[in-house]
Amino acid sequence: MPLDYPPTLQRLVAQLKSLPGLGPRSAERLMLWLVQGGKDRVRPLAATLDSLAETVAACDHCGFFIESGSACMLCHNPKRQRRLLCVVEQASDVLRLERSGAYQGLYHVLGGKLSPLDNVTPEDLRIAPLLDRAKDLDVEEVILALGSDVEGEATASYIADLLRGAGVTITRLAQGMPAGGALDHVDELTLYQALQGRRKVD
Amino acid sequence: MPLDYPPTLQRLVAQLKSLPGLGPRSAERLMLWLVQGGKDRVRPLAATLDSLAETVAACDHCGFFIESGSACMLCHNPKRQRRLLCVVEQASDVLRLERSGAYQGLYHVLGGKLSPLDNVTPEDLRIAPLLDRAKDLDVEEVILALGSDVEGEATASYIADLLRGAGVTITRLAQGMPAGGALDHVDELTLYQALQGRRKVD
Repeated sequence: MPLDYPPTLQRLVAQLKSLPGLGPRSAERLMLWLVQGGKDRVRPLAATLDSLAETVAACDHCGFFIESGSACMLCHNPKRQRRLLCVVEQASDVLRLERSGAYQGLYHVLGGKLSPLDNVTPEDLRIAPLLDRAKDLDVEEVILALGSDVEGEATASYIADLLRGAGVTITRLAQGMPAGGALDHVDELTLYQALQGRRKVD
Repeated sequence: MPLDYPPTLQRLVAQLKSLPGLGPRSAERLMLWLVQGGKDRVRPLAATLDSLAETVAACDHCGFFIESGSACMLCHNPKRQRRLLCVVEQASDVLRLERSGAYQGLYHVLGGKLSPLDNVTPEDLRIAPLLDRAKDLDVEEVILALGSDVEGEATASYIADLLRGAGVTITRLAQGMPAGGALDHVDELTLYQALQGRRKVD
């Protein structure tokens, strides 16, 4: 048997390697950095990870992260427009939209997108709670801010079908040229959609 | 103040971002993956990190990692040649050399290389213990397996000067063409060294 690191270090490398985006070499480099740093380097990270499952939860209403015992920063913010509901796939999408500064309404995190190949069905997503909230909040507009990949499109159509007839305006994010993008960096489908959705210049 | 993740998650992102090789975006992606995995995903990693400082130490002799309470797999292996000593910068270098299968002697980890700009002086490295070990083990040959960068070269020269006159053969790793490398992928200095160190074909 060739020499290897002691068992604890081998276990740490295996655990680091299982993290997304970390290959065998970066896992080993990270392990060496952690073990050479001693207690001061690993303890704070270990403590945060250890408390993660206890202190962080999802808001029952919108699905964004909350700290246990504290109210949702979105749902309990009186400044936000309560009759606008923006549907996103992931909690991280909420922050992307917030950073754009273009939205002041409420959110609804689905927790994923419909994907029959990955066995993700409507029951796996927070779609039933979405319909309840749309009714309870007497929502005027539901914005489907889902990805423009196949699964995102399918999820948006599915939700739009369910909401139709409920007297709610259903909208989707505009599709078109990305900011700062030149025409020759954009694929044909994006150009097609940018042409279809062209806006009049006043 | 724009919306951000709850404090625990912000702290985790900050801690992950401080790891080598992780930028802000990969730290955020990693945080989301960890928080969405729940207890089963974070607990084992937290436990390993927590026990790291307690269970892993450096061997007093060679400087390679040992688990607390167990003997060094290198220094206490009776099959290894005890009069051959290979000097390396880092504990991870030991494994690189072991995986090559070309060495059966003992090791000595310096813990770095001389670097006046980073305030690394001979006192910061395990150089005095090296001299003691070379005498105690009645070593025949000391192999300086240090990097071929400026600091590695300087460290090798410094140690060679100290060992000279002690009746020990001092050697260095060969410099030349990397395995599988074509001539046009190799820099001029490497080619110069490969020519200088050319070997006769029998």
